[in-house]
Amino acid sequence: MTAEDVFSIPLDVPFAAVDTFIANYQRVTRGTGRLMLFAGDQKVEHLNDDFFGDGIHEDDSSPLHLFRIASEGKVGVFATQYGLVVRYGMDFPDIPYLVKLNSKTHLVKTQQKDPYSPLLVSVQDVVDLRDRTGLAIAAVGYTIYIGSEYESEMMREAQQVILDAHKNGMLVVLWIYPRGAAVKDEKDPHLIAGAAGVAAALGADYVKVNAPKKEGTPSSELLKEAVLAAGRTKVVCAGGSSIDEKKFIQELYDQIHTGGASGNATGRNIHQKGLAAAVRFTEAIYAITVEGATVDEAWKIYSAE
Amino acid sequence: MTAEDVFSIPLDVPFAAVDTFIANYQRVTRGTGRLMLFAGDQKVEHLNDDFFGDGIHEDDSSPLHLFRIASEGKVGVFATQYGLVVRYGMDFPDIPYLVKLNSKTHLVKTQQKDPYSPLLVSVQDVVDLRDRTGLAIAAVGYTIYIGSEYESEMMREAQQVILDAHKNGMLVVLWIYPRGAAVKDEKDPHLIAGAAGVAAALGADYVKVNAPKKEGTPSSELLKEAVLAAGRTKVVCAGGSSIDEKKFIQELYDQIHTGGASGNATGRNIHQKGLAAAVRFTEAIYAITVEGATVDEAWKIYSAE
Amino acid sequence: MTAEDVFSIPLDVPFAAVDTFIANYQRVTRGTGRLMLFAGDQKVEHLNDDFFGDGIHEDDSSPLHLFRIASEGKVGVFATQYGLVVRYGMDFPDIPYLVKLNSKTHLVKTQQKDPYSPLLVSVQDVVDLRDRTGLAIAAVGYTIYIGSEYESEMMREAQQVILDAHKNGMLVVLWIYPRGAAVKDEKDPHLIAGAAGVAAALGADYVKVNAPKKEGTPSSELLKEAVLAAGRTKVVCAGGSSIDEKKFIQELYDQIHTGGASGNATGRNIHQKGLAAAVRFTEAIYAITVEGATVDEAWKIYSAE
Amino acid sequence: MTAEDVFSIPLDVPFAAVDTFIANYQRVTRGTGRLMLFAGDQKVEHLNDDFFGDGIHEDDSSPLHLFRIASEGKVGVFATQYGLVVRYGMDFPDIPYLVKLNSKTHLVKTQQKDPYSPLLVSVQDVVDLRDRTGLAIAAVGYTIYIGSEYESEMMREAQQVILDAHKNGMLVVLWIYPRGAAVKDEKDPHLIAGAAGVAAALGADYVKVNAPKKEGTPSSELLKEAVLAAGRTKVVCAGGSSIDEKKFIQELYDQIHTGGASGNATGRNIHQKGLAAAVRFTEAIYAITVEGATVDEAWKIYSAE
Amino acid sequence: MTAEDVFSIPLDVPFAAVDTFIANYQRVTRGTGRLMLFAGDQKVEHLNDDFFGDGIHEDDSSPLHLFRIASEGKVGVFATQYGLVVRYGMDFPDIPYLVKLNSKTHLVKTQQKDPYSPLLVSVQDVVDLRDRTGLAIAAVGYTIYIGSEYESEMMREAQQVILDAHKNGMLVVLWIYPRGAAVKDEKDPHLIAGAAGVAAALGADYVKVNAPKKEGTPSSELLKEAVLAAGRTKVVCAGGSSIDEKKFIQELYDQIHTGGASGNATGRNIHQKGLAAAVRFTEAIYAITVEGATVDEAWKIYSAE
Repeated sequence: MTAEDVFSIPLDVPFAAVDTFIANYQRVTRGTGRLMLFAGDQKVEHLNDDFFGDGIHEDDSSPLHLFRIASEGKVGVFATQYGLVVRYGMDFPDIPYLVKLNSKTHLVKTQQKDPYSPLLVSVQDVVDLRDRTGLAIAAVGYTIYIGSEYESEMMREAQQVILDAHKNGMLVVLWIYPRGAAVKDEKDPHLIAGAAGVAAALGADYVKVNAPKKEGTPSSELLKEAVLAAGRTKVVCAGGSSIDEKKFIQELYDQIHTGGASGNATGRNIHQKGLAAAVRFTEAIYAITVEGATVDEAWKIYSAE
Repeated sequence: MTAEDVFSIPLDVPFAAVDTFIANYQRVTRGTGRLMLFAGDQKVEHLNDDFFGDGIHEDDSSPLHLFRIASEGKVGVFATQYGLVVRYGMDFPDIPYLVKLNSKTHLVKTQQKDPYSPLLVSVQDVVDLRDRTGLAIAAVGYTIYIGSEYESEMMREAQQVILDAHKNGMLVVLWIYPRGAAVKDEKDPHLIAGAAGVAAALGADYVKVNAPKKEGTPSSELLKEAVLAAGRTKVVCAGGSSIDEKKFIQELYDQIHTGGASGNATGRNIHQKGLAAAVRFTEAIYAITVEGATVDEAWKIYSAE
Repeated sequence: MTAEDVFSIPLDVPFAAVDTFIANYQRVTRGTGRLMLFAGDQKVEHLNDDFFGDGIHEDDSSPLHLFRIASEGKVGVFATQYGLVVRYGMDFPDIPYLVKLNSKTHLVKTQQKDPYSPLLVSVQDVVDLRDRTGLAIAAVGYTIYIGSEYESEMMREAQQVILDAHKNGMLVVLWIYPRGAAVKDEKDPHLIAGAAGVAAALGADYVKVNAPKKEGTPSSELLKEAVLAAGRTKVVCAGGSSIDEKKFIQELYDQIHTGGASGNATGRNIHQKGLAAAVRFTEAIYAITVEGATVDEAWKIYSAE
Repeated sequence: MTAEDVFSIPLDVPFAAVDTFIANYQRVTRGTGRLMLFAGDQKVEHLNDDFFGDGIHEDDSSPLHLFRIASEGKVGVFATQYGLVVRYGMDFPDIPYLVKLNSKTHLVKTQQKDPYSPLLVSVQDVVDLRDRTGLAIAAVGYTIYIGSEYESEMMREAQQVILDAHKNGMLVVLWIYPRGAAVKDEKDPHLIAGAAGVAAALGADYVKVNAPKKEGTPSSELLKEAVLAAGRTKVVCAGGSSIDEKKFIQELYDQIHTGGASGNATGRNIHQKGLAAAVRFTEAIYAITVEGATVDEAWKIYSAE
Repeated sequence: MTAEDVFSIPLDVPFAAVDTFIANYQRVTRGTGRLMLFAGDQKVEHLNDDFFGDGIHEDDSSPLHLFRIASEGKVGVFATQYGLVVRYGMDFPDIPYLVKLNSKTHLVKTQQKDPYSPLLVSVQDVVDLRDRTGLAIAAVGYTIYIGSEYESEMMREAQQVILDAHKNGMLVVLWIYPRGAAVKDEKDPHLIAGAAGVAAALGADYVKVNAPKKEGTPSSELLKEAVLAAGRTKVVCAGGSSIDEKKFIQELYDQIHTGGASGNATGRNIHQKGLAAAVRFTEAIYAITVEGATVDEAWKIYSAE
């Protein structure tokens, strides 16, 4: 562990929880501080749209697929809902889990009502589960929509989640997206930097933001403002938007090495593949994110076979 | 008990409650995992519309009728409100009960306001009743309207209901219906699969969905997507919509044997009949659902006499 | 006490409270199960409209009048607000009281906003008062407006009121009125039967509904559907709407003997009279309701002097 | 103390608090039951409008002025906010205080939104302050706007305030004003009588209402209906609306001797004067209200110098 | 300590917390009662707008900059969010902190919805952090928007914050801004005096208001009304609006020496400079505010080098 890592233990982690906090941090980042987060929380967020239909491998039609990938592939942490963890966790006890605490469906659109996604389970519920079962629940996650008329409710819940999680030695990843009637451009780099700053002001360990976009500048270049604004809160980004795996890997590499991102959060690009390809893709992403691989090395990992 | 059954005990059932959970599961499914749920919660949901009027047997005008059917017929579990259980339970101590925890009337339509149905009683209230009286309250139920502007409040309540019920060894059935201004087609198979996935993400034991509909494909065929999406959460369906009993039985058979449903939830088609016919109809439905009967066998059970 | 009465003790009355529950039931119905409820909660509901103005006796201008009637007349239970009980109860310790727990004024009309009437005092507040003072507080009451956009909040509060009151051996009377933008005909017999069914589903002891109306059928005939729908919850009705006392008595008789009502809830028709006439009118109503009197016998009681 | 006074101890004052309740009652009314309330809560309600500007003495620009008047003048009780009591109370330990528990500014008008004024401090906060410092906090106050869409929330809070205050031996003054989109005439005598009846139904000790107005009848005559409706809750009125001190005194005399008011609540007419005149005006008002003075006697007290 | 200071200890500071309260007061004002508050809470309020862009020094792009200024410069208290304190506090243990308890972004404008900014952390959360880490957290802050439809919720939270903070010996600064559809002129001196009076009524130690504006009168002159209205609550003002440092210093001097302000709250004018200039600017502001410097003396401090 480097001095940097020691310094990053926030003061709301009480003495009794420091060892747990460090262990979780080491486990999910292998001591690098960089996070490869496999996102499997879309069964609420996107209903069945991400799991069944054209271009989606039939393996993905059952939630079991997510757990198999997380177990056989290489992931820093697997993010999913509490209910799935309690239904499948007994068969996948070695996966490091992040329990996503709030979720909403995409049915009610922003033009109808600004987004609000309250807590479904409390941090204490998660701690109870962790302590009773011994599952490797290393982190919790929460989504805030800044610019929503309900942003304050979500910021308040997120702040309390951070306090409660740190008290119990768990890491916190905030997903922060500008969204609502008041938001004109959700990908505006300056606004995304603002989102990163909100995460810093709340004291999150990681903040997941969307990749910024602006005509004429590469996204990884634009990301720098957010990484600076986040200070000691680390920024992870949606993986590349491309469905071309090689481009995806290149974009991810640039986010980290140019933009200063500390990792990525990738979901559909992984689990919409069949099991074998999905596993190899996690290995490639992990290599880039955590193991310092080049784009070519990562590509070989994925395309091998 | 099969290995499958053992695996299906979710991790939020603590050790002390496992025996109770298994006993409840065995009792309401006779160890098959398939559930015949007799729904008698419409006195709030539909006021007196289902109990009095043209085509409804006069036996159905009093709530006593529901208890007589549940007692003399064959049902996996009888779902009704807390207040009715405390008024009639002393005379019907052998019925396995599911207490429906939330309810609303149908007076305020979706075009006026999106549906919201909050908890009327807590799981703890139900546990207290069970433990004090010894009534066979094996399960609780809760309805979520996804696509409602209030879906998050209901998802949160449902999640906590599941935690609390499992902590006390009781099963949970979620009714999940897409409904609200944002929902165009409540019977869309893909949306119903989404509803099933939400139940999985919340960790329900059973999810009751409406039978999907789409021009040109049998409903039982369409149901497969939902059953896959639900993973280890089992899907039960509204019984056939037909009032022709033979067609009803056929549709139910197809839902189970083609669609992969693990049972059914049937109300009006049973209790709007006179007592004797209603009892025979529960026997026919039970035979299909739990006892592996053919359509012909079930029909004989119903039409016999 | 008949077997019927024993059966009617609901299961949410714990063993320790059964004696109190039976004693309260016996006291307010004299063991008949039929309830003569004198309603004196209009000072909030109707402000001063029912107490001062043309056709209202000047005795009625002070709240003292209500207590005098309840004390000198014959009533099963006197329903009024907590604040009045604590201000006058020391001088009227022998009245059996029902504390009306929620109230709203009639200023905001349904066309402006759907009705909502939250709890003003909790059941525990009432229990504390009863236990500390020894006042004969035998029951509590709560009003639900079904069809209001806020019906669920009221159903939830009502359900909890029933649990809390029964836990302490007190009876519960629900007032249930269909009201709100979604309600076209508040007196529709089928809708009123629905209201009675809601009370049954919540497990109330008594439900007060408005007398149903439909062209061509006597109200007492129409009431039968509600009485059946209510099951073991007993139905009481507004007394006759007529201000002609003889007609009032006749209508009340018919509600009980034809419609199956278990009593009545009468307010203005009593307290808008001077003290002596009001007292005699309670005696007449009580005779019909509890003592099995004929219309002529009751009329003699009222008109005698 | 008269028998009347003993009777007026409401039953929600527990035995242990009776002595405190009587002592407070005696102190603020000098045993007469009549209350001279000096209102100094306008710094929230009216911001700086009542304290600075044309026709307002410069003494009034600082909150210190209010405390000096309350200390050097004669008042039954001085009503102001918690924050001012804790900032000035150490220098004015002999003033009998009423802590006004809820407050709102006048910025949002009724045409924009119906009024709602929630609790700022709890009764327990006030009790803690009283018991720790020994300040003579004899009463608490709360404002309800009946006819507002939020009236129920305020009635509920007011009811709980009364229970909590009486439990601790403190008096309660309710300010009740009809206000909101549903209210056409805030000074309608019948409506004001309704407001007084609401206070009675909640069990308040005093209710402050606006002086009723109706073409052709003196306000003091119109007030009688409210005094009757309030029963054992005593009515205090805004002092005369006139800024002519003699007329003010005459109107106040009539409210008490004709209308039956038990006192007055006066603010701006006192504190907008310089200290010496304000002190003399409190003496004049006190003489009328508590000491049985005639109009001429009171006028001499004020104009004397 | 002067008698004035002793008097200013409010009565809601219990005996056990008096020493802490005095120590905090002495520390942040050096015993003068005048406060130089360095505001660094804009990462939520203004997202990244104040930290990155034209005219902003690149030092300001990371939150570290704020802590460096607060550490190397001279500030009475450094106001920022809880999350930043827990991330950077271990490296800056000597800064006196004010934790800003509520925050919102500027994305939703007043024309869309009136402002509401609820608590993110409780006073108890802050006390726990202080007591566990020994950080010099001397004060907490809260923003109220009077004239917002949500003002009452914020006034209630602010009042409770004051009680809780004083109970623990911490000072409270309220930011009070008139804002909402009902507010026509946010800088109206009379309205700002009203805001100051609200702070007095709540019992705040300091209230930060915007500098009042009115054609034809210097702002420092206009401020006098607010200082009087605030009574024993001290008024601090936004520093001068000018970006010309000399004018800024002059305006600040006038606010204190003419207007009667007890200090200032300055943010962007400090932290948008590079570190060295920012540090010197804090020294200049501190000299004026706390050390009694003249404008020329302060200017020399800033421009020196």
